[in-house]
Amino acid sequence: MAVADAVIKLGGDVLSGPALAAVAADVARARPGRRLVIVHGGGPQTTELSRRLGIEPRLVGGRRITDQAALDVVKMVVAGRLNVDLVGALRGAGVPAIGLSGSSGIVRAHRRPPRAVSGSDGALVDFGFVGDVDDFDGAALDALETAGYLPVLACLAAGASGEALNINADVVASQLAGVLGARALIACTAVGGVRRDKDDPASRLPRLTVAEARAAIADGIVQGGMIPKLEEAFAPLAAGVGAVHIVAPGEIAASLASPGTVGTLLIP
Amino acid sequence: MAVADAVIKLGGDVLSGPALAAVAADVARARPGRRLVIVHGGGPQTTELSRRLGIEPRLVGGRRITDQAALDVVKMVVAGRLNVDLVGALRGAGVPAIGLSGSSGIVRAHRRPPRAVSGSDGALVDFGFVGDVDDFDGAALDALETAGYLPVLACLAAGASGEALNINADVVASQLAGVLGARALIACTAVGGVRRDKDDPASRLPRLTVAEARAAIADGIVQGGMIPKLEEAFAPLAAGVGAVHIVAPGEIAASLASPGTVGTLLIP
Repeated sequence: MAVADAVIKLGGDVLSGPALAAVAADVARARPGRRLVIVHGGGPQTTELSRRLGIEPRLVGGRRITDQAALDVVKMVVAGRLNVDLVGALRGAGVPAIGLSGSSGIVRAHRRPPRAVSGSDGALVDFGFVGDVDDFDGAALDALETAGYLPVLACLAAGASGEALNINADVVASQLAGVLGARALIACTAVGGVRRDKDDPASRLPRLTVAEARAAIADGIVQGGMIPKLEEAFAPLAAGVGAVHIVAPGEIAASLASPGTVGTLLIP
Repeated sequence: MAVADAVIKLGGDVLSGPALAAVAADVARARPGRRLVIVHGGGPQTTELSRRLGIEPRLVGGRRITDQAALDVVKMVVAGRLNVDLVGALRGAGVPAIGLSGSSGIVRAHRRPPRAVSGSDGALVDFGFVGDVDDFDGAALDALETAGYLPVLACLAAGASGEALNINADVVASQLAGVLGARALIACTAVGGVRRDKDDPASRLPRLTVAEARAAIADGIVQGGMIPKLEEAFAPLAAGVGAVHIVAPGEIAASLASPGTVGTLLIP
C-alpha cells in the first residue's frame, strides 16, 4: 500500500472563491519534501446545483436519500467541476496535481443496507446510492505519487459492480490516512480550529488529546458541526495517524511545519 | 513518452443508455494483450444540461462560444458524470479503468486567440475558454498503464496557468494516438462506419486509403458529420498511426482483431 506523509481533507467551503486560491498556495508551500494526498467533497455546491436543477432533497427520518438524480449531481459537482477547479488552482500554484475520483475503484464500498433510524418509526430506510467504505486501492495513488504527482481525490466510491456511490468525505479522508500510514491528517475548512467561543479567535484550543476532546464535547465546550469533525478524528488516531490538524485555508503548511501554532491539533 | 497499442475515442452518443454497456463489454474483449487509452467527449449531454440550466448557447458567426457558464457545464458533464459513468461501466465489465481529466495537465493547450471567421464580417471572435492542443503529458498515462490500469481521459485541457479549457475530443484523440505511437485509433460512434447510403448497412465502405477518402468526400459519396470524422483521421495517419477504425459500439474488439471486417478502416 502507498505511503503518504499527510492526507489533506478539503471541505466544500474552501473549494470556491478566494479560499480556493489560498488553499492552493498553502498546499504549494506544504508540499516540498512531503508526500501528500488530497481528498475533497463538495456538500454546499452539490446542494446549490440541486436547487438550480429543481431537484428537491429527499429526506426520510431527517436523513438525506441519494437517489439517481442526487447521485448524478454529486458526480457532476464533486468529480466534475470542483475536482477540475481544485486541480487547476493547484497547477496554477505550481503543484503537479492530478485529479481522480474514488469511484475509479480507489475507494471501494458497499451500498448501505436499508436500516431503521431514529425518526423512521422502525421502518427500514433505504438511503439509495450511499456507500460505506470497505477498503482502498492504493496502487493508483502510489503509481502517481511515484511519478511525481499529487493525487486529488473526489469523494465518490465504487460499489462491487463498479457503480458509483455517494460517500462521506470526512470518513474517507480519515480511513485513508490510516491505511496510507500518514503521520498527519489535515482537515481544512473555513471555520478552522476549535474555539471555546466560536466568535473569538483568541479562544482557540491549540492542542487536544482524544480524552480532552471527548471531555470538551461532553462539557458543551465544543458544539454544532465541530463535534462530528472531532469525532471523525478519533478513528484515524486510533489507527496510528500521529495527529489530526484542524485548520483554516492558509494554515496547512504552518500546521505541518509547527504543529499547534495554528488551528487545533488533535493527538491520541 | 508512453506507448499505447490503440487509442479509443468514444463519442458522447455512445456514453449513455444501452450503447454504454455495449461499449464496456466491447472494451473488455479488446483489452487482453493490448495497451489501450480511452478518450471521450460528451457533446449531446453537455447541450442537454445547458438547456436544463437555462444556459443559452452563445454563437458568434455560427461558432459556439465557451463562456464561463458553458465551461462549467463541460466540467460537470464530461469530467464529472460521463467519465464516472464510463469508468463505472468498464469496471462492471471487469476492466480496471481509471478516470482522468485532460485538464490535469495531461492535455496541454493554449487559449485560442480571437480571430476573424466566416460570418463575423472581419470582426475578431473571442471563442472564450477554448483551447488548441500544444502537447501531452504522457507520464501519468504511462504510470497508470504500467500499474495495470486503463486510463479513461475526459476531454478537457489545461492552459498555461492551470485553467481548464474546452477542447475537441476528436482532435485530442487523433493527436494523442500519434504521440503515443498507437498502431490504431478507434473512433466509436453510434453511426459506425462510413456508408455510401447512410440508411443501407450493405453500402458500408470497409476500407479506404486517405486518397480514396478524399475522393469520396470530393465526389459527395461521404456527407455530413462523417466528413470531419474522416478528415480528422488524416493527421494521425500522416503521423504514423497505422489505421483509423471507424466503428459502432460492439465492434471495437472485432475491428482490432480483424481490421476491415466491421466499420470502416482508414489507412494511409
